Amino acid sequence: MINVLFAARSERWGTYEAPLKAAFEEYGLDVDLRTDFAPDEVDYIVYAPNSDVQDFTPYTRCKAVLNLWAGVEGIVGNQTLTQPLARMVDYGLTQGMVEWVTGHVLRYHLGMDLHIHGQDGEWRTYVPPLAEDRRVTILGLGELGTACGSALTTLGFPVTGWSRSQKEITGITCFSGPDGLSQALDRADILVLLLPKTPATENTLNAETLALLPDGAVVINPGRGQLIDDDALLAALDDGPVQHATLDVFRVEPLPADHPFWHHPRVTVTPHIASETRPASASRVIAENISRSEAGDPLLHLVNRDAGY
Amino acid sequence: MINVLFAARSERWGTYEAPLKAAFEEYGLDVDLRTDFAPDEVDYIVYAPNSDVQDFTPYTRCKAVLNLWAGVEGIVGNQTLTQPLARMVDYGLTQGMVEWVTGHVLRYHLGMDLHIHGQDGEWRTYVPPLAEDRRVTILGLGELGTACGSALTTLGFPVTGWSRSQKEITGITCFSGPDGLSQALDRADILVLLLPKTPATENTLNAETLALLPDGAVVINPGRGQLIDDDALLAALDDGPVQHATLDVFRVEPLPADHPFWHHPRVTVTPHIASETRPASASRVIAENISRSEAGDPLLHLVNRDAGY
Repeated sequence: MINVLFAARSERWGTYEAPLKAAFEEYGLDVDLRTDFAPDEVDYIVYAPNSDVQDFTPYTRCKAVLNLWAGVEGIVGNQTLTQPLARMVDYGLTQGMVEWVTGHVLRYHLGMDLHIHGQDGEWRTYVPPLAEDRRVTILGLGELGTACGSALTTLGFPVTGWSRSQKEITGITCFSGPDGLSQALDRADILVLLLPKTPATENTLNAETLALLPDGAVVINPGRGQLIDDDALLAALDDGPVQHATLDVFRVEPLPADHPFWHHPRVTVTPHIASETRPASASRVIAENISRSEAGDPLLHLVNRDAGY
Repeated sequence: MINVLFAARSERWGTYEAPLKAAFEEYGLDVDLRTDFAPDEVDYIVYAPNSDVQDFTPYTRCKAVLNLWAGVEGIVGNQTLTQPLARMVDYGLTQGMVEWVTGHVLRYHLGMDLHIHGQDGEWRTYVPPLAEDRRVTILGLGELGTACGSALTTLGFPVTGWSRSQKEITGITCFSGPDGLSQALDRADILVLLLPKTPATENTLNAETLALLPDGAVVINPGRGQLIDDDALLAALDDGPVQHATLDVFRVEPLPADHPFWHHPRVTVTPHIASETRPASASRVIAENISRSEAGDPLLHLVNRDAGY
C-alpha cells in the first residue's frame, strides 16, 4: 500500500479524487489516497503550492513531491523541502496552450479585430500577408514554448525562439543569452512570452527591451505577469513600437478593475485562461511518476532547484 | 515562340506582367506575353472570367485556357469554349485559406469575442474544452477543404468532411451523398463551407439542413455566397441552432451596407478576404501548365466540364 497525501485547497479534492483513483488503478498502483495522514506515514505528496502544507520537515519518509501546477515558483525556494520535486507537464495543459497561442497569433496575423469591431457596412479589403511573411518570436523554449513554436511552424510562420541555455529545435531558429535576446526581439512581429517565473526572468520586457521590437509589434503574454514591466509596456503602446498586447497573466490576479490594462484601447485582457491543467491527463502524469519512483526509475519533469524550474 | 494572351481586367496586367514573365523564364519558356493578339495567333489564354474575352470561337489554335481564379463558374458554361480549361490551384491561395479558416475556427473554439468585446474589468474565467472535444465539419473536400481539414486535424480537432463523391483522406471522417450530409451536419459544432459553386450546391444550407445542426453551432463561409439561403440562415440565428456566423462571401459583393448580415449581432461579415490568388505563386502554376502542355503532358487542375469544377 502506497500512502499518497493530496495537499491542495479543499475545492480541488472534488475535481481530482476520481481521476487520480482511476489513474492509479490504470497504472496498477495500490494507493491509499487521502487529504490527511500522519506526516511520517506519507510516501508521496500530490501538491498545489497554495495548500496548507508549507513545512515539509515532518514528512520523513516522503519519496517525492508531485506538483499539480506547471509553475513551481511557490515551492522551489522552500528550504524545508529536501525531497525530489516534479513539475506538472500535462498533455492537456500543453495542448490548451498551443490552441490559445495559435489562435491569438492568427487573430493578429489575420487582422480579425478589424472585422469583429467593424460591422458597419464598410467593405475593407485588407488581405494579410501569408504566414511565411509574419515573424513570430517565442521567449522560453520549455515544454510549452517548444510545442507552440512547432505548431506555428507547421502553419507556415517563421519562428524564432529564445531561452537561457542554447537549444536545438527542428524548424525553430534558436537564440540564447543577452545578445541572442536582442536578435530575437528585433524580428518579433509577434512576440509570445512563455518564460518561467524566476528572479532572472522578472521584467524581461522592460523599457530597454521593448524598444528593440519592430514597429507595429504585437505582444502576447500567456506566461507570467512578472515577465513584463507594466508601465514600460503601457509606454511602448502609447509612444513606442507596440501596436497591441493580449495579456492573460498579471502580477495581481484577478487583475483589478481599475488597472490601466483593462482600459487601454490596444490591450486585450484575458482572465488567466490560456491554459489550465486538466484533471484526467494530469492524474495520469502523477500515477506514472509514482509508478516510476516505485520501480526505481528517475522521475519525469524533475525540477532543477538551482535554476528554479 | 509561344504566344500567350493575358485576358483579364486591365488593372490585373500591372500585377501579373512581371511575375508571369519571371515564371516563364524560370520554366525556360520562350513566351511572347501580351494583352492583345490576333485571335488566330494565340497559343494559350491566361484568363479571368470577368475579362472582355467571352467568345472563344476565333481562338482557333489556342491549346488551353488557364484560369487565374480558383472559381470557374464564370467560364465553365461558356459554349464557345472547346479548349481544355485549367483551374487555378495556387499554393498561396490554399495557404491563405488554411490560415483564415484555422484562425476563425480557433476564434470560436477559444471564445475570443467574449474577451475582445468584454474589456470591462470583469474577470470571466471560462476555459474552453480542448480541440479534441470540438467537432468541425467541412463541406467540400477539394484542394481547399482538404488542406483546411488537415491543418485542423493537426491541431487536434476531430474533423468530418462531406463531398459529392466519396473521398478517403487520412485523419478526416469522410461522408458523401444526401444521407452523409445529414450525418456531417449533425456533428458540426463548427461548420466550414468550402464547396464549389455549381447548380447542385446552391442553397446547400437552407431551412431544412440548418435544422440538422447541433445547438450552438457556428457557421463559417469562406466558400461561395450562393451556398447559403440568406433568409434561412438569419432565421436559424434568431430561432434555430446557429449561435454565430462568420461570412466572407455573398451573393452580391461588396455586401450592400443595408444587408441584415451587417447588422445582426451574431454575424461577422468579412470582405471576401479569406483567400486570394498570389501573383508570384499563381504565375508559376501557369508556367508549369504551359510547360506540361508543350511537352505533351496532361494539364494540372483540369476542369471537369460536366461536373462544373
